[in-house]
Amino acid sequence: MQNILLLGAGQSATSLIQYLLSHAAENDWHLTIGEQNVELARQKSGGHPRARLITFDIKDAAQVHEEIERADMVISMLPAMFHGIAAKKCVELGKDMLTASYVSDEIKGLDEAFKAKGKHCLMELGLDPGIDHMSAMRVLDNIREEGHQLIGFESFTGGLLADDQMHDNPWKYKFTWNPRNVVLAGQGYVKFVQEGRYKYIPYHKLFQRTEVIHIPGYGYFEGYANRDSLKYLDLYNLRGIPTMYRGTLRRTGFCKGWDLFVQLGATDDTFELERVDTMTHRQFINCFLQYNPNNSIELKLAHYLDIGLESEEMYKLKWLGMFSEELVGLQKGTPAQILEHILKKKWTLTAEDRDMIVMWHKFDFMDKGVHRQIQSHLVVEGEDPVNTAMAKTVGLPLAIAARLVLQKKLFKPGVHIPTSKDIYTPILDELENMGFVMSDREVEVKV
Amino acid sequence: MQNILLLGAGQSATSLIQYLLSHAAENDWHLTIGEQNVELARQKSGGHPRARLITFDIKDAAQVHEEIERADMVISMLPAMFHGIAAKKCVELGKDMLTASYVSDEIKGLDEAFKAKGKHCLMELGLDPGIDHMSAMRVLDNIREEGHQLIGFESFTGGLLADDQMHDNPWKYKFTWNPRNVVLAGQGYVKFVQEGRYKYIPYHKLFQRTEVIHIPGYGYFEGYANRDSLKYLDLYNLRGIPTMYRGTLRRTGFCKGWDLFVQLGATDDTFELERVDTMTHRQFINCFLQYNPNNSIELKLAHYLDIGLESEEMYKLKWLGMFSEELVGLQKGTPAQILEHILKKKWTLTAEDRDMIVMWHKFDFMDKGVHRQIQSHLVVEGEDPVNTAMAKTVGLPLAIAARLVLQKKLFKPGVHIPTSKDIYTPILDELENMGFVMSDREVEVKV
Repeated sequence: MQNILLLGAGQSATSLIQYLLSHAAENDWHLTIGEQNVELARQKSGGHPRARLITFDIKDAAQVHEEIERADMVISMLPAMFHGIAAKKCVELGKDMLTASYVSDEIKGLDEAFKAKGKHCLMELGLDPGIDHMSAMRVLDNIREEGHQLIGFESFTGGLLADDQMHDNPWKYKFTWNPRNVVLAGQGYVKFVQEGRYKYIPYHKLFQRTEVIHIPGYGYFEGYANRDSLKYLDLYNLRGIPTMYRGTLRRTGFCKGWDLFVQLGATDDTFELERVDTMTHRQFINCFLQYNPNNSIELKLAHYLDIGLESEEMYKLKWLGMFSEELVGLQKGTPAQILEHILKKKWTLTAEDRDMIVMWHKFDFMDKGVHRQIQSHLVVEGEDPVNTAMAKTVGLPLAIAARLVLQKKLFKPGVHIPTSKDIYTPILDELENMGFVMSDREVEVKV
Repeated sequence: MQNILLLGAGQSATSLIQYLLSHAAENDWHLTIGEQNVELARQKSGGHPRARLITFDIKDAAQVHEEIERADMVISMLPAMFHGIAAKKCVELGKDMLTASYVSDEIKGLDEAFKAKGKHCLMELGLDPGIDHMSAMRVLDNIREEGHQLIGFESFTGGLLADDQMHDNPWKYKFTWNPRNVVLAGQGYVKFVQEGRYKYIPYHKLFQRTEVIHIPGYGYFEGYANRDSLKYLDLYNLRGIPTMYRGTLRRTGFCKGWDLFVQLGATDDTFELERVDTMTHRQFINCFLQYNPNNSIELKLAHYLDIGLESEEMYKLKWLGMFSEELVGLQKGTPAQILEHILKKKWTLTAEDRDMIVMWHKFDFMDKGVHRQIQSHLVVEGEDPVNTAMAKTVGLPLAIAARLVLQKKLFKPGVHIPTSKDIYTPILDELENMGFVMSDREVEVKV
């Protein structure tokens, strides 16, 4: 018998729980789901006889000790800041731990301790980070093994609405993932390298410097750069590659609209606005515009941001109700918190909505003096607002990795991310068996 | 006999040292100047018999104790982060302390302790902060005492080049104060209140939202907003005033040029660039532009920032040598550090250069239903690169306050800034005797 302790049963845990429970009987697994909201855990486990539901609080040190002690493996879907607590307890008690979050320096520092106990701490096992690492590394390793020289790698991922779900939504977008992260995306500085030149984009220019990407069968998308592509030079063993660029995908036109919020300063999260309790959507926008009682807020905004009064961008703002006298409905907040709250009124998935994940890689390499290129994409559509593409693509690689470790088909103690063949191969193989196929195809190089 | 310990003899200490030494004999003062660079202290004290020069290191706890113990008063011109060390020692040993820096929370917390010892910690006694507080509060208090209702206060200060010193410099500007602060000015978020509406400007829009200010006899200037005008609502006892705006003055056209650096991202101080040791000015600019080997950097920049190839702004960049293949000359650095280093090559005062300080206030108030307005300005010109307007206006209020405290003409123990009449009146009176006159005049209200 093996006990799995899952911490958190939120958005991305649905497919994970289904996978683990469907393999529980044959492997004699028992799954404990620790949640602040036990009802949520009940819905997702559907009264399965091998599921045990508990109210769990990561800040309750006694409970953390007790529950991790009775488990063989901990899967943490908690907010990333809590992984450290769980990881330290797993080391202390000699348990395996898996998450879909980025490795922090704190957790990296536990590598030797996990190794000494012969236990795993596998991180970044979701979609992005996760499937992006695995699917890219498989192609990169192949190209290198064939003796070719890599000269460029670009990779974009996006959580979007499925094709048939955009209806009258001019943004062709709703929140399919943590809304706060979407509002704050790109803040700070973007770094990448292109043809050997290091390039830097400040936040206020980021959504103006998009790239158009075509995906066969799905049409055109636009990508904006992620914060620090340079750190992947080491992660993917690509030091010296002339081009390295990672980004986020949106449907075309999104970034031009989103840039309006960036230009206004409406995505700032560093200070609280005054008088939020009585603020309307319209007043929120007016906070960022010059005082001038003789002109409308619409005209002031159009002039300030240099867009037409009847432009598509203006319509996008109107569709969101940004100019309405509706109360925001918060007592206090930063611009980013208020914007998120207003956006949720229109950008929350309804029962009819289905989400979609799109991932795209481009690999450039020299084969005996000839420039060749492979492009690769994965598109996954959700079924409904619970069984989302995001839940599948974040939860399933994690679930598969859990199975492999519990079945001792994967044994590599220490802190790892899935960039090595022994980890990514069995996970990608099982994902393909389940229908999640990354299409790799060689394309003609356009100079 | 009284001993004064001056810590730091840098740029702004020249006039301070002259004032203290010129009053030393009549008051039986002895001045100890503590400097890392004793030669600098020697130049500024000119071998005066009542001046004692020592090599001083604020991090040497034994020396700090010994020197503060033998002093009656400490005047700190050290970088602001070191004031806490000096202030704590002054409290411990029961000494007065004066600075021209902003009160930190740490120092605010020493208020009761200074009071208990019957000693002063007077802060913000320079130009800005300093003369701005004093000259504004004198008018504000007068207006209130006459029973009028304040409805608006705006205040701008700038350190500039004197009128006849601009020659062929298209920026009409050089560094007359800490260059690093000039490069980083305005970063973060700007807040103010106008006609009862709270307004916020993000950094990337700040230098586009300038205000034109006319000063009789000196012509037109432009002002951009300082970070947080709202904190002055409490400092000046102006809660409820509909308009409160503080800013920085530049000569017209400066901000449009400076905005180019902001738009590029060249003022960012949060991360280090790659390959700085081999970087030229031209490559520095190119870091922020799109990769495109078929176009010139000049054209890429003009297109990206939407300015003409032969525009005044473009000429400003060329005059600075931003497109030259000259090496930057640093081993590493953030964009802001590299930009500062390049700018210093052209923006450093020469022996012929004279600086100029301009301060301007506007007070709006209601007098029995009638809207009235007072405008007020101070212009001070420097003599040469040592006896600068900045040194006079930062150092003299501090020196005068020191005299008043030592002569017991000012007795108000505790931590204070000069916003109360008992502090600002004698300081402003003496400044006027010395020729630093704030012109207050009523002007016709333009609606």
